[in-house]
Amino acid sequence: MFTDMLRRFVEQCPGAVGAVLMGYDGIAVDQYYLPVERVDLGMVAVEYANVLKEIRNAAEILKTGELREVSIVSKSYQVLIRTLGDEYFIGLTLKREGNAGKGRYLLLRDAPEIQAALA
Amino acid sequence: MFTDMLRRFVEQCPGAVGAVLMGYDGIAVDQYYLPVERVDLGMVAVEYANVLKEIRNAAEILKTGELREVSIVSKSYQVLIRTLGDEYFIGLTLKREGNAGKGRYLLLRDAPEIQAALA
Repeated sequence: MFTDMLRRFVEQCPGAVGAVLMGYDGIAVDQYYLPVERVDLGMVAVEYANVLKEIRNAAEILKTGELREVSIVSKSYQVLIRTLGDEYFIGLTLKREGNAGKGRYLLLRDAPEIQAALA
Repeated sequence: MFTDMLRRFVEQCPGAVGAVLMGYDGIAVDQYYLPVERVDLGMVAVEYANVLKEIRNAAEILKTGELREVSIVSKSYQVLIRTLGDEYFIGLTLKREGNAGKGRYLLLRDAPEIQAALA
């Protein structure tokens, strides 16, 4: 059901290699990945689900308000995460040189529609 | 020694409220904070040091390459983190409406100098 939308994120964002709609439990609702060497992008998403739970807990403890967006840049990849309420998030993985600004824009633009469809 | 530089980050970045140079053990080398209501920004940095360790471990497991940059946006604040080698990082905390692009630029520009001074 969400695969078309995830594929559009990847196709419309230069340098994007994969997108996933996932619960905080690390279970993917839907995903779309280009074949990429050496890195298991499904695993990337699961690992980041764990990290995201930690960040969310930190934000709660610290009362900095509900978590909205996380971006992680490593030597080879960028991961953009947009939260969708209390249970789900979208993760978009880009190559290091990918257009993160475009990716953030696309996630922000479509988040309300996806969240409505999940409810 | 690093306080002047941290103060400059805060003064030069619109919306910034604090900057910290910190080890992954959560111990601050130096910090500079504007007084802000309701949130203990020192605690924010310590919580995020823990989160950053998790992210770094995930990046290692996944072989996505060395962690460079993390940004976390919550309802009220943004936190920008730039890694400085294996032991330290800089965290810059901004209000939600602050200029994160300018903050990222300043951290990227000055990171090599700070890293050299730490060595």
